[in-house]
Amino acid sequence: MPERTYGEIDGFPPGSTFTSREDLAATGVHRPLQAGICGGRDGAESIVVSGGYPDDEDFGDELIYTGQGGLKGRKQVKDQELKSGNIGLARSAIEGYPVRVIRGEGGDTSYSPAKGLRYDGLYRVVDFWHETRNRRRIWRFRLVAEDEQGLDRTEPGRPTPTARRATTIQRIVRSTAKAQRVKLIHRHQCQVCDLAISTPTGDYAEAAHIKALGKPHNGPDEESNILCLCPNHHVMFDAGAIYIDEVWMVWDSANDQPIRELRRHGRHKINRTYVEYHRKHHALSRAQGA
Amino acid sequence: MPERTYGEIDGFPPGSTFTSREDLAATGVHRPLQAGICGGRDGAESIVVSGGYPDDEDFGDELIYTGQGGLKGRKQVKDQELKSGNIGLARSAIEGYPVRVIRGEGGDTSYSPAKGLRYDGLYRVVDFWHETRNRRRIWRFRLVAEDEQGLDRTEPGRPTPTARRATTIQRIVRSTAKAQRVKLIHRHQCQVCDLAISTPTGDYAEAAHIKALGKPHNGPDEESNILCLCPNHHVMFDAGAIYIDEVWMVWDSANDQPIRELRRHGRHKINRTYVEYHRKHHALSRAQGA
Repeated sequence: MPERTYGEIDGFPPGSTFTSREDLAATGVHRPLQAGICGGRDGAESIVVSGGYPDDEDFGDELIYTGQGGLKGRKQVKDQELKSGNIGLARSAIEGYPVRVIRGEGGDTSYSPAKGLRYDGLYRVVDFWHETRNRRRIWRFRLVAEDEQGLDRTEPGRPTPTARRATTIQRIVRSTAKAQRVKLIHRHQCQVCDLAISTPTGDYAEAAHIKALGKPHNGPDEESNILCLCPNHHVMFDAGAIYIDEVWMVWDSANDQPIRELRRHGRHKINRTYVEYHRKHHALSRAQGA
Repeated sequence: MPERTYGEIDGFPPGSTFTSREDLAATGVHRPLQAGICGGRDGAESIVVSGGYPDDEDFGDELIYTGQGGLKGRKQVKDQELKSGNIGLARSAIEGYPVRVIRGEGGDTSYSPAKGLRYDGLYRVVDFWHETRNRRRIWRFRLVAEDEQGLDRTEPGRPTPTARRATTIQRIVRSTAKAQRVKLIHRHQCQVCDLAISTPTGDYAEAAHIKALGKPHNGPDEESNILCLCPNHHVMFDAGAIYIDEVWMVWDSANDQPIRELRRHGRHKINRTYVEYHRKHHALSRAQGA
Protein backbone atom coordinates (compact mmCIF):
# COMPACT_ATOMS: atom_id res chain seq x y z
CA MET A 1 0.00 0.00 0.00
CA PRO A 2 1.27 3.50 -0.77
CA GLU A 3 2.38 5.68 2.10
CA ARG A 4 -0.41 8.20 2.55
CA THR A 5 -0.32 11.60 4.15
CA TYR A 6 -3.67 12.59 5.59
CA GLY A 7 -4.27 16.15 6.63
CA GLU A 8 -2.46 19.32 5.79
CA ILE A 9 0.87 19.39 3.96
CA ASP A 10 3.45 21.55 5.73
CA GLY A 11 3.94 24.87 4.02
CA PHE A 12 0.65 24.76 2.13
CA PRO A 13 -2.13 26.27 4.22
CA PRO A 14 -5.66 26.71 2.86
CA GLY A 15 -5.63 29.37 0.16
CA SER A 16 -2.34 28.22 -1.38
CA THR A 17 -2.47 28.49 -5.16
CA PHE A 18 -0.86 26.44 -7.90
CA THR A 19 -0.45 27.24 -11.57
CA SER A 20 -0.82 23.69 -12.90
CA ARG A 21 -1.42 20.04 -11.96
CA GLU A 22 2.33 19.47 -12.24
CA ASP A 23 3.00 22.30 -9.83
CA LEU A 24 0.33 20.89 -7.49
CA ALA A 25 1.63 17.31 -7.71
CA ALA A 26 5.20 18.37 -6.91
CA THR A 27 4.09 19.73 -3.53
CA GLY A 28 2.37 16.52 -2.47
CA VAL A 29 -0.92 18.35 -1.90
CA HIS A 30 -2.47 16.21 -4.66
CA ARG A 31 -0.02 13.71 -6.12
CA PRO A 32 -1.66 12.30 -9.29
CA LEU A 33 -1.29 14.36 -12.44
CA GLN A 34 -4.65 13.47 -13.95
CA ALA A 35 -6.87 11.57 -11.50
CA GLY A 36 -9.34 13.60 -9.49
CA ILE A 37 -8.99 11.37 -6.44
CA CYS A 38 -5.73 10.39 -4.77
CA GLY A 39 -6.67 7.21 -2.95
CA GLY A 40 -7.04 3.44 -2.80
CA ARG A 41 -8.25 0.60 -0.54
CA ASP A 42 -6.59 2.19 2.48
CA GLY A 43 -8.24 5.60 2.09
CA ALA A 44 -8.20 8.80 0.04
CA GLU A 45 -6.07 11.79 0.93
CA SER A 46 -7.09 14.46 -1.60
CA ILE A 47 -9.45 15.34 -4.43
CA VAL A 48 -9.50 17.95 -7.17
CA VAL A 49 -12.81 19.64 -7.97
CA SER A 50 -12.73 21.19 -11.39
CA GLY A 51 -16.02 20.52 -13.11
CA GLY A 52 -14.90 17.30 -14.78
CA TYR A 53 -18.05 15.53 -13.75
CA PRO A 54 -21.41 16.97 -14.81
CA ASP A 55 -23.16 15.94 -11.60
CA ASP A 56 -20.74 17.45 -9.09
CA GLU A 57 -22.35 20.05 -6.87
CA ASP A 58 -20.37 22.68 -5.02
CA PHE A 59 -21.90 24.49 -2.06
CA GLY A 60 -18.62 25.90 -0.79
CA ASP A 61 -18.29 24.32 2.58
CA GLU A 62 -20.12 21.25 1.30
CA LEU A 63 -19.58 19.23 -1.86
CA ILE A 64 -21.37 16.44 -3.67
CA TYR A 65 -18.56 14.73 -5.52
CA THR A 66 -18.83 11.98 -8.10
CA GLY A 67 -16.50 8.98 -8.19
CA GLN A 68 -14.21 8.15 -11.07
CA GLY A 69 -14.56 5.86 -14.06
CA GLY A 70 -16.94 4.96 -16.86
CA LEU A 71 -17.21 8.39 -18.41
CA LYS A 72 -16.85 8.96 -22.15
CA GLY A 73 -16.90 12.69 -22.76
CA ARG A 74 -19.82 13.84 -20.61
CA LYS A 75 -21.66 10.52 -20.85
CA GLN A 76 -21.64 7.61 -18.42
CA VAL A 77 -21.03 4.52 -20.53
CA LYS A 78 -19.90 2.04 -17.85
CA ASP A 79 -20.59 1.32 -14.19
CA GLN A 80 -18.24 2.95 -11.74
CA GLU A 81 -16.69 0.33 -9.49
CA LEU A 82 -15.97 0.56 -5.77
CA LYS A 83 -12.23 0.47 -6.26
CA SER A 84 -9.17 2.78 -6.48
CA GLY A 85 -10.20 6.39 -5.77
CA ASN A 86 -13.84 5.47 -5.17
CA ILE A 87 -13.14 2.92 -2.44
CA GLY A 88 -10.57 5.38 -1.12
CA LEU A 89 -13.19 8.05 -0.46
CA ALA A 90 -15.57 5.46 1.02
CA ARG A 91 -12.81 4.22 3.30
CA SER A 92 -12.00 7.78 4.38
CA ALA A 93 -15.68 8.16 5.23
CA ILE A 94 -15.81 5.19 7.56
CA GLU A 95 -12.37 5.87 9.04
CA GLY A 96 -13.02 9.59 9.46
CA TYR A 97 -9.87 10.67 7.61
CA PRO A 98 -9.59 14.28 6.50
CA VAL A 99 -9.44 14.83 2.73
CA ARG A 100 -7.60 17.77 1.15
CA VAL A 101 -9.87 19.57 -1.31
CA ILE A 102 -8.34 21.43 -4.22
CA ARG A 103 -10.50 23.55 -6.51
CA GLY A 104 -9.45 24.25 -10.07
CA GLU A 105 -10.61 26.46 -12.90
CA GLY A 106 -13.62 24.93 -14.61
CA GLY A 107 -15.42 24.24 -11.35
CA ASP A 108 -18.45 26.07 -9.96
CA THR A 109 -17.67 29.73 -10.55
CA SER A 110 -18.93 30.83 -7.12
CA TYR A 111 -16.19 28.90 -5.35
CA SER A 112 -13.47 28.05 -7.87
CA PRO A 113 -10.46 30.11 -8.91
CA ALA A 114 -10.68 31.70 -12.35
CA LYS A 115 -7.28 30.31 -13.24
CA GLY A 116 -5.06 27.55 -11.88
CA LEU A 117 -5.76 25.61 -8.69
CA ARG A 118 -6.26 26.44 -5.02
CA TYR A 119 -6.02 24.28 -1.91
CA ASP A 120 -9.20 24.93 0.09
CA GLY A 121 -8.56 23.01 3.31
CA LEU A 122 -9.66 19.74 4.88
CA TYR A 123 -13.06 18.16 4.40
CA ARG A 124 -14.62 15.01 5.84
CA VAL A 125 -16.47 12.49 3.72
CA VAL A 126 -19.69 12.26 5.69
CA ASP A 127 -21.71 10.06 3.35
CA PHE A 128 -21.36 7.90 0.26
CA TRP A 129 -23.92 6.11 -1.90
CA HIS A 130 -24.57 5.05 -5.48
CA GLU A 131 -26.98 6.34 -8.11
CA THR A 132 -27.88 5.55 -11.69
CA ARG A 133 -26.97 7.69 -14.69
CA ASN A 134 -27.75 6.50 -18.18
CA ARG A 135 -28.52 3.11 -16.58
CA ARG A 136 -24.95 2.90 -15.19
CA ARG A 137 -23.94 3.08 -11.57
CA ILE A 138 -22.07 6.11 -10.30
CA TRP A 139 -20.66 6.60 -6.79
CA ARG A 140 -21.37 9.80 -4.96
CA PHE A 141 -19.72 11.35 -1.92
CA ARG A 142 -20.76 14.17 0.34
CA LEU A 143 -17.88 16.15 1.84
CA VAL A 144 -18.17 18.85 4.50
CA ALA A 145 -15.46 21.38 5.36
CA GLU A 146 -13.75 20.52 8.60
CA ASP A 147 -13.27 24.06 9.72
CA GLU A 148 -14.52 27.42 8.65
CA GLN A 149 -11.45 29.36 9.59
CA GLY A 150 -9.72 29.21 6.25
CA LEU A 151 -11.24 30.87 3.26
CA ASP A 152 -14.69 32.31 3.47
CA ARG A 153 -16.64 29.85 1.42
CA THR A 154 -20.10 30.64 2.69
CA GLU A 155 -22.61 32.86 1.03
CA PRO A 156 -24.14 35.59 3.16
CA GLY A 157 -27.36 34.56 4.80
CA ARG A 158 -26.76 30.84 4.61
CA PRO A 159 -26.70 28.90 7.83
CA THR A 160 -23.15 28.49 9.04
CA PRO A 161 -21.44 25.18 8.40
CA THR A 162 -21.25 24.38 12.08
CA ALA A 163 -24.96 24.71 12.59
CA ARG A 164 -25.76 22.72 9.51
CA ARG A 165 -23.34 20.00 10.39
CA ALA A 166 -24.81 19.58 13.82
CA THR A 167 -28.13 18.65 12.32
CA THR A 168 -27.00 16.37 9.55
CA ILE A 169 -24.06 14.37 10.82
CA GLN A 170 -24.88 11.89 13.47
CA ARG A 171 -21.64 10.06 14.00
CA ILE A 172 -18.16 11.45 13.73
CA VAL A 173 -15.37 9.08 14.55
CA ARG A 174 -11.88 10.48 14.17
CA SER A 175 -8.92 8.29 13.44
CA THR A 176 -5.31 9.22 14.05
CA ALA A 177 -2.24 7.57 12.56
CA LYS A 178 -1.54 5.84 15.88
CA ALA A 179 -5.12 4.64 16.09
CA GLN A 180 -4.87 3.29 12.58
CA ARG A 181 -1.73 1.29 13.41
CA VAL A 182 -3.42 -0.36 16.39
CA LYS A 183 -6.41 -1.30 14.26
CA LEU A 184 -4.16 -2.84 11.61
CA ILE A 185 -2.22 -4.88 14.20
CA HIS A 186 -5.52 -6.31 15.43
CA ARG A 187 -6.85 -6.66 11.88
CA HIS A 188 -9.88 -4.62 12.96
CA GLN A 189 -10.93 -7.33 15.42
CA CYS A 190 -12.41 -6.15 18.70
CA GLN A 191 -10.08 -6.94 21.59
CA VAL A 192 -13.07 -7.85 23.73
CA CYS A 193 -15.27 -9.94 21.42
CA ASP A 194 -13.05 -10.64 18.34
CA LEU A 195 -15.65 -9.22 15.95
CA ALA A 196 -14.37 -7.38 12.86
CA ILE A 197 -17.29 -5.61 11.22
CA SER A 198 -17.25 -6.42 7.55
CA THR A 199 -18.34 -3.66 5.16
CA PRO A 200 -18.11 -3.19 1.38
CA THR A 201 -15.19 -0.83 2.05
CA GLY A 202 -13.23 -3.24 4.23
CA ASP A 203 -13.27 -4.24 7.88
CA TYR A 204 -14.22 -1.68 10.48
CA ALA A 205 -13.19 -1.14 14.08
CA GLU A 206 -12.79 1.86 16.34
CA ALA A 207 -9.80 3.05 18.30
CA ALA A 208 -10.72 3.69 21.92
CA HIS A 209 -8.40 5.86 23.96
CA ILE A 210 -8.04 4.26 27.39
CA LYS A 211 -7.10 7.41 29.30
CA ALA A 212 -9.25 9.93 27.47
CA LEU A 213 -7.75 12.63 25.28
CA GLY A 214 -8.28 16.25 26.19
CA LYS A 215 -8.82 18.05 29.43
CA PRO A 216 -8.60 17.10 32.20
CA HIS A 217 -7.37 13.54 31.64
CA ASN A 218 -4.88 14.50 28.94
CA GLY A 219 -4.29 10.91 27.91
CA PRO A 220 -1.78 10.67 25.07
CA ASP A 221 -2.55 9.67 21.50
CA GLU A 222 -0.12 6.75 21.74
CA GLU A 223 -0.53 3.11 20.81
CA SER A 224 -0.03 2.13 24.46
CA ASN A 225 -3.17 4.15 25.29
CA ILE A 226 -5.41 2.71 22.56
CA LEU A 227 -7.65 -0.33 22.31
CA CYS A 228 -9.11 -1.73 19.10
CA LEU A 229 -12.82 -2.23 19.80
CA CYS A 230 -16.06 -2.80 17.93
CA PRO A 231 -18.46 0.17 18.26
CA ASN A 232 -20.56 -1.67 20.86
CA HIS A 233 -17.64 -2.36 23.17
CA HIS A 234 -16.31 1.14 22.53
CA VAL A 235 -19.56 2.64 23.83
CA MET A 236 -19.48 0.26 26.80
CA PHE A 237 -15.87 1.09 27.61
CA ASP A 238 -16.39 4.87 27.43
CA ALA A 239 -19.55 4.66 29.52
CA GLY A 240 -17.80 2.61 32.21
CA ALA A 241 -20.02 -0.44 31.52
CA ILE A 242 -16.88 -2.57 31.10
CA TYR A 243 -13.42 -2.19 32.54
CA ILE A 244 -10.13 -4.11 32.60
CA ASP A 245 -8.50 -5.39 35.78
CA GLU A 246 -4.83 -5.85 36.78
CA VAL A 247 -4.53 -9.19 34.99
CA TRP A 248 -6.23 -8.06 31.73
CA MET A 249 -9.60 -9.55 32.56
CA VAL A 250 -12.52 -7.58 31.09
CA TRP A 251 -15.33 -7.10 33.59
CA ASP A 252 -18.99 -6.28 33.21
CA SER A 253 -19.51 -3.40 35.68
CA ALA A 254 -23.22 -3.90 36.16
CA ASN A 255 -22.97 -7.51 37.31
CA ASP A 256 -19.42 -7.51 38.67
CA GLN A 257 -18.77 -10.49 36.42
CA PRO A 258 -15.67 -11.24 34.36
CA ILE A 259 -16.41 -11.47 30.62
CA ARG A 260 -13.11 -12.75 29.22
CA GLU A 261 -9.45 -11.84 29.05
CA LEU A 262 -8.59 -8.91 26.78
CA ARG A 263 -7.04 -10.21 23.57
CA ARG A 264 -3.58 -8.69 23.28
CA HIS A 265 -0.88 -8.73 20.63
CA GLY A 266 2.91 -8.78 20.95
CA ARG A 267 3.33 -5.72 18.74
CA HIS A 268 0.81 -3.68 20.70
CA LYS A 269 1.94 -2.95 24.26
CA ILE A 270 -0.74 -1.45 26.47
CA ASN A 271 0.34 0.74 29.37
CA ARG A 272 -1.20 -0.54 32.61
CA THR A 273 -1.21 2.96 34.09
CA TYR A 274 -3.83 4.04 31.58
CA VAL A 275 -5.95 0.95 32.21
CA GLU A 276 -5.80 1.70 35.92
CA TYR A 277 -6.81 5.31 35.27
CA HIS A 278 -9.86 4.18 33.29
CA ARG A 279 -10.80 1.66 35.99
CA LYS A 280 -10.43 4.25 38.72
CA HIS A 281 -12.31 7.08 37.04
CA HIS A 282 -14.80 5.54 34.62
CA ALA A 283 -15.73 2.07 35.84
CA LEU A 284 -18.59 1.72 38.26
CA SER A 285 -19.27 -1.60 39.90
CA ARG A 286 -22.73 -2.37 41.18
CA ALA A 287 -21.44 -2.05 44.75
CA GLN A 288 -20.34 1.52 43.97
CA GLY A 289 -23.42 2.43 41.94
CA ALA A 290 -26.40 4.64 42.47
CA MET B 1 -40.69 11.34 34.04
CA PRO B 2 -40.79 15.12 33.72
CA GLU B 3 -41.32 16.63 30.29
CA ARG B 4 -37.93 17.96 29.28
CA THR B 5 -37.06 20.65 26.79
CA TYR B 6 -33.65 20.13 25.28
CA GLY B 7 -32.05 22.90 23.32
CA GLU B 8 -32.83 26.55 23.12
CA ILE B 9 -35.92 28.14 24.70
CA ASP B 10 -37.78 30.37 22.26
CA GLY B 11 -37.19 34.02 22.91
CA PHE B 12 -34.01 33.49 24.93
CA PRO B 13 -31.00 33.45 22.64
CA PRO B 14 -27.45 33.20 23.99
CA GLY B 15 -26.56 36.37 25.83
CA SER B 16 -29.99 36.73 27.46
CA THR B 17 -29.64 38.02 31.01
CA PHE B 18 -31.67 37.41 34.15
CA THR B 19 -31.68 39.30 37.41
CA SER B 20 -32.32 36.34 39.70
CA ARG B 21 -32.87 32.57 39.87
CA GLU B 22 -36.61 33.25 40.15
CA ASP B 23 -36.49 35.34 36.98
CA LEU B 24 -34.47 32.58 35.26
CA ALA B 25 -36.77 29.77 36.43
CA ALA B 26 -39.88 31.56 35.21
CA THR B 27 -38.57 31.51 31.63
CA GLY B 28 -37.90 27.78 31.60
CA VAL B 29 -34.26 28.30 30.70
CA HIS B 30 -33.31 26.68 34.03
CA ARG B 31 -36.32 25.54 36.02
CA PRO B 32 -35.04 24.68 39.50
CA LEU B 33 -34.67 27.55 41.94
CA GLN B 34 -31.67 26.18 43.78
CA ALA B 35 -30.21 23.08 42.09
CA GLY B 36 -27.33 23.67 39.70
CA ILE B 37 -28.46 20.84 37.40
CA CYS B 38 -31.91 20.45 35.91
CA GLY B 39 -32.03 16.75 35.13
CA GLY B 40 -32.82 13.17 36.06
CA ARG B 41 -32.59 9.59 34.77
CA ASP B 42 -33.81 10.66 31.34
CA GLY B 43 -31.21 13.40 30.83
CA ALA B 44 -30.23 16.90 31.89
CA GLU B 45 -31.41 20.02 30.10
CA SER B 46 -29.54 22.86 31.80
CA ILE B 47 -26.92 23.77 34.37
CA VAL B 48 -25.99 26.90 36.26
CA VAL B 49 -22.29 27.67 36.71
CA SER B 50 -21.78 30.08 39.55
CA GLY B 51 -18.77 28.98 41.53
CA GLY B 52 -20.70 26.86 44.00
CA TYR B 53 -18.27 24.01 43.66
CA PRO B 54 -14.58 24.64 44.43
CA ASP B 55 -13.34 22.27 41.72
CA ASP B 56 -15.31 23.64 38.78
CA GLU B 57 -13.11 24.91 35.99
CA ASP B 58 -14.30 27.36 33.37
CA PHE B 59 -12.42 27.74 30.09
CA GLY B 60 -15.18 29.63 28.34
CA ASP B 61 -16.07 27.29 25.52
CA GLU B 62 -15.23 24.34 27.71
CA LEU B 63 -16.21 23.57 31.28
CA ILE B 64 -15.25 21.00 33.88
CA TYR B 65 -18.35 20.80 36.01
CA THR B 66 -18.81 18.94 39.27
CA GLY B 67 -21.89 16.91 40.10
CA GLN B 68 -24.22 17.64 42.98
CA GLY B 69 -24.44 16.33 46.52
CA GLY B 70 -22.30 15.57 49.55
CA LEU B 71 -20.98 19.07 50.08
CA LYS B 72 -20.97 20.76 53.49
CA GLY B 73 -19.82 24.32 53.00
CA ARG B 74 -16.81 23.89 50.74
CA LYS B 75 -16.01 20.38 52.02
CA GLN B 76 -16.99 17.04 50.51
CA VAL B 77 -18.39 15.00 53.37
CA LYS B 78 -20.34 12.32 51.47
CA ASP B 79 -20.04 10.41 48.20
CA GLN B 80 -21.90 11.89 45.28
CA GLU B 81 -24.26 9.35 43.79
CA LEU B 82 -25.03 8.70 40.15
CA LYS B 83 -28.61 9.90 40.47
CA SER B 84 -30.83 12.98 39.88
CA GLY B 85 -28.80 15.75 38.22
CA ASN B 86 -25.63 13.66 38.06
CA ILE B 87 -27.16 10.77 36.17
CA GLY B 88 -28.94 13.41 34.07
CA LEU B 89 -25.68 14.87 32.80
CA ALA B 90 -24.22 11.40 32.23
CA ARG B 91 -27.32 10.44 30.27
CA SER B 92 -27.10 13.62 28.19
CA ALA B 93 -23.50 12.63 27.44
CA ILE B 94 -24.36 9.24 26.04
CA GLU B 95 -27.49 10.46 24.29
CA GLY B 96 -25.79 13.55 22.85
CA TYR B 97 -28.39 15.98 24.19
CA PRO B 98 -27.54 19.67 24.21
CA VAL B 99 -27.37 21.28 27.65
CA ARG B 100 -28.18 24.93 28.26
CA VAL B 101 -25.38 26.61 30.20
CA ILE B 102 -26.17 29.58 32.39
CA ARG B 103 -23.39 31.51 34.09
CA GLY B 104 -24.03 33.47 37.24
CA GLU B 105 -22.16 35.94 39.39
CA GLY B 106 -19.67 34.13 41.60
CA GLY B 107 -18.28 32.05 38.75
CA ASP B 108 -14.91 32.44 37.05
CA THR B 109 -14.54 36.18 36.56
CA SER B 110 -13.17 35.81 33.00
CA TYR B 111 -16.41 34.37 31.72
CA SER B 112 -19.16 35.12 34.25
CA PRO B 113 -21.37 38.17 34.51
CA ALA B 114 -20.54 40.54 37.37
CA LYS B 115 -24.17 40.54 38.45
CA GLY B 116 -27.17 38.33 37.82
CA LEU B 117 -27.23 35.41 35.37
CA ARG B 118 -26.64 34.98 31.65
CA TYR B 119 -27.61 32.19 29.27
CA ASP B 120 -24.48 31.29 27.30
CA GLY B 121 -25.79 28.81 24.74
CA LEU B 122 -25.79 25.06 24.23
CA TYR B 123 -23.01 22.75 25.29
CA ARG B 124 -22.49 19.00 24.85
CA VAL B 125 -21.39 16.74 27.70
CA VAL B 126 -18.47 15.03 26.02
CA ASP B 127 -17.10 13.08 28.97
CA PHE B 128 -17.93 12.10 32.53
CA TRP B 129 -15.95 10.33 35.23
CA HIS B 130 -15.50 10.16 38.99
CA GLU B 131 -12.71 11.36 41.24
CA THR B 132 -11.95 11.38 44.94
CA ARG B 133 -12.04 14.47 47.17
CA ASN B 134 -11.50 14.13 50.87
CA ARG B 135 -11.88 10.34 50.33
CA ARG B 136 -15.38 10.85 48.91
CA ARG B 137 -16.46 10.29 45.35
CA ILE B 138 -17.37 13.25 43.17
CA TRP B 139 -18.71 13.12 39.62
CA ARG B 140 -17.15 15.30 36.98
CA PHE B 141 -18.41 16.34 33.55
CA ARG B 142 -16.66 17.98 30.64
CA LEU B 143 -18.88 20.20 28.51
CA VAL B 144 -17.91 21.83 25.22
CA ALA B 145 -19.78 24.69 23.56
CA GLU B 146 -21.81 23.50 20.61
CA ASP B 147 -21.29 26.55 18.49
CA GLU B 148 -19.02 29.53 18.64
CA GLN B 149 -21.44 31.93 17.06
CA GLY B 150 -22.97 33.28 20.22
CA LEU B 151 -20.92 35.23 22.68
CA ASP B 152 -17.21 35.44 22.19
CA ARG B 153 -16.00 33.23 24.97
CA THR B 154 -12.49 32.54 23.69
CA GLU B 155 -9.39 34.37 24.75
CA PRO B 156 -7.24 35.79 21.98
CA GLY B 157 -4.52 33.44 20.84
CA ARG B 158 -6.18 30.27 22.05
CA PRO B 159 -6.91 27.55 19.53
CA THR B 160 -10.45 27.87 18.33
CA PRO B 161 -13.07 25.58 19.81
CA THR B 162 -13.61 23.80 16.50
CA ALA B 163 -9.97 22.86 16.14
CA ARG B 164 -9.68 21.72 19.70
CA ARG B 165 -12.82 19.70 19.51
CA ALA B 166 -11.71 17.89 16.41
CA THR B 167 -8.74 16.51 18.27
CA THR B 168 -10.39 15.57 21.53
CA ILE B 169 -13.83 14.24 20.73
CA GLN B 170 -13.94 10.98 18.95
CA ARG B 171 -17.59 10.16 18.83
CA ILE B 172 -20.49 12.52 18.52
CA VAL B 173 -23.89 10.98 18.29
CA ARG B 174 -26.79 13.38 18.07
CA SER B 175 -30.23 12.49 19.25
CA THR B 176 -33.41 14.23 18.24
CA ALA B 177 -36.78 14.08 19.98
CA LYS B 178 -38.11 11.77 17.25
CA ALA B 179 -35.07 9.54 17.56
CA GLN B 180 -35.56 9.38 21.28
CA ARG B 181 -39.17 8.27 20.91
CA VAL B 182 -38.22 5.42 18.60
CA LYS B 183 -35.55 4.26 21.03
CA LEU B 184 -38.03 4.29 23.89
CA ILE B 185 -40.61 2.28 21.91
CA HIS B 186 -37.97 -0.37 21.30
CA ARG B 187 -36.65 -0.07 24.85
CA HIS B 188 -33.21 0.57 23.38
CA GLN B 189 -33.11 -2.89 21.82
CA CYS B 190 -31.48 -3.18 18.41
CA GLN B 191 -34.08 -4.03 15.76
CA VAL B 192 -31.59 -6.36 14.10
CA CYS B 193 -30.00 -8.27 17.01
CA ASP B 194 -32.17 -7.38 20.05
CA LEU B 195 -29.18 -6.20 22.06
CA ALA B 196 -29.73 -3.28 24.44
CA ILE B 197 -26.35 -2.08 25.64
CA SER B 198 -26.47 -1.78 29.38
CA THR B 199 -24.49 1.08 30.95
CA PRO B 200 -24.41 2.63 34.43
CA THR B 201 -26.51 5.48 33.01
CA GLY B 202 -29.19 3.25 31.51
CA ASP B 203 -29.61 1.33 28.29
CA TYR B 204 -28.07 2.62 25.12
CA ALA B 205 -29.04 2.42 21.45
CA GLU B 206 -28.61 4.65 18.42
CA ALA B 207 -31.21 6.07 16.07
CA ALA B 208 -30.27 5.38 12.47
CA HIS B 209 -31.93 7.48 9.81
CA ILE B 210 -32.90 5.17 6.96
CA LYS B 211 -32.95 7.77 4.19
CA ALA B 212 -30.07 9.95 5.34
CA LEU B 213 -30.60 13.48 6.61
CA GLY B 214 -29.00 16.36 4.72
CA LYS B 215 -28.14 16.93 1.11
CA PRO B 216 -28.75 15.33 -1.26
CA HIS B 217 -30.96 12.62 0.26
CA ASN B 218 -32.93 15.01 2.44
CA GLY B 219 -34.50 12.21 4.43
CA PRO B 220 -36.87 13.54 7.10
CA ASP B 221 -36.26 13.39 10.84
CA GLU B 222 -39.46 11.40 11.32
CA GLU B 223 -40.13 8.22 13.26
CA SER B 224 -41.05 6.45 10.03
CA ASN B 225 -37.49 7.12 8.79
CA ILE B 226 -35.68 5.90 11.91
CA LEU B 227 -34.44 2.52 13.11
CA CYS B 228 -33.34 1.71 16.64
CA LEU B 229 -29.97 -0.05 16.27
CA CYS B 230 -26.96 -1.02 18.36
CA PRO B 231 -23.81 0.87 17.33
CA ASN B 232 -22.46 -2.16 15.43
CA HIS B 233 -25.55 -2.57 13.29
CA HIS B 234 -25.75 1.20 12.86
CA VAL B 235 -22.27 1.22 11.33
CA MET B 236 -23.18 -1.75 9.15
CA PHE B 237 -26.41 -0.13 7.98
CA ASP B 238 -24.77 3.21 7.13
CA ALA B 239 -21.92 1.47 5.30
CA GLY B 240 -24.33 -0.64 3.25
CA ALA B 241 -23.10 -3.87 4.86
CA ILE B 242 -26.71 -4.75 5.72
CA TYR B 243 -29.96 -3.78 4.08
CA ILE B 244 -33.67 -4.56 4.44
CA ASP B 245 -35.75 -6.13 1.68
CA GLU B 246 -39.43 -5.73 0.68
CA VAL B 247 -40.63 -8.19 3.34
CA TRP B 248 -38.54 -6.75 6.20
CA MET B 249 -35.81 -9.34 5.98
CA VAL B 250 -32.38 -8.02 6.96
CA TRP B 251 -29.66 -9.13 4.52
CA ASP B 252 -25.90 -9.37 4.82
CA SER B 253 -24.65 -7.59 1.68
CA ALA B 254 -21.27 -9.32 1.54
CA ASN B 255 -22.67 -12.85 1.43
CA ASP B 256 -26.11 -12.15 -0.04
CA GLN B 257 -27.54 -14.04 2.92
CA PRO B 258 -30.60 -13.22 4.98
CA ILE B 259 -29.80 -12.59 8.67
CA ARG B 260 -33.26 -12.36 10.22
CA GLU B 261 -36.46 -10.39 9.98
CA LEU B 262 -36.31 -6.84 11.28
CA ARG B 263 -38.02 -6.66 14.66
CA ARG B 264 -40.88 -4.16 14.38
CA HIS B 265 -43.32 -2.62 16.81
CA GLY B 266 -46.96 -1.63 16.33
CA ARG B 267 -46.35 1.91 17.59
CA HIS B 268 -43.44 2.47 15.23
CA LYS B 269 -44.44 2.47 11.57
CA ILE B 270 -41.54 2.42 9.13
CA ASN B 271 -42.05 3.92 5.69
CA ARG B 272 -41.12 1.38 3.01
CA THR B 273 -40.11 4.15 0.59
CA TYR B 274 -37.17 5.05 2.83
CA VAL B 275 -36.11 1.43 3.17
CA GLU B 276 -36.20 1.11 -0.59
CA TYR B 277 -34.11 4.27 -0.95
CA HIS B 278 -31.47 2.89 1.39
CA ARG B 279 -31.45 -0.45 -0.43
CA LYS B 280 -31.15 1.25 -3.79
CA HIS B 281 -28.43 3.74 -2.89
CA HIS B 282 -26.42 2.25 -0.04
CA ALA B 283 -26.62 -1.52 -0.19
CA LEU B 284 -24.11 -3.38 -2.29
CA SER B 285 -24.52 -7.07 -2.88
CA ARG B 286 -21.49 -9.18 -3.76
CA ALA B 287 -22.80 -9.49 -7.29
CA GLN B 288 -22.75 -5.69 -7.60
CA GLY B 289 -19.44 -5.20 -5.79
CA ALA B 290 -15.93 -4.20 -6.73
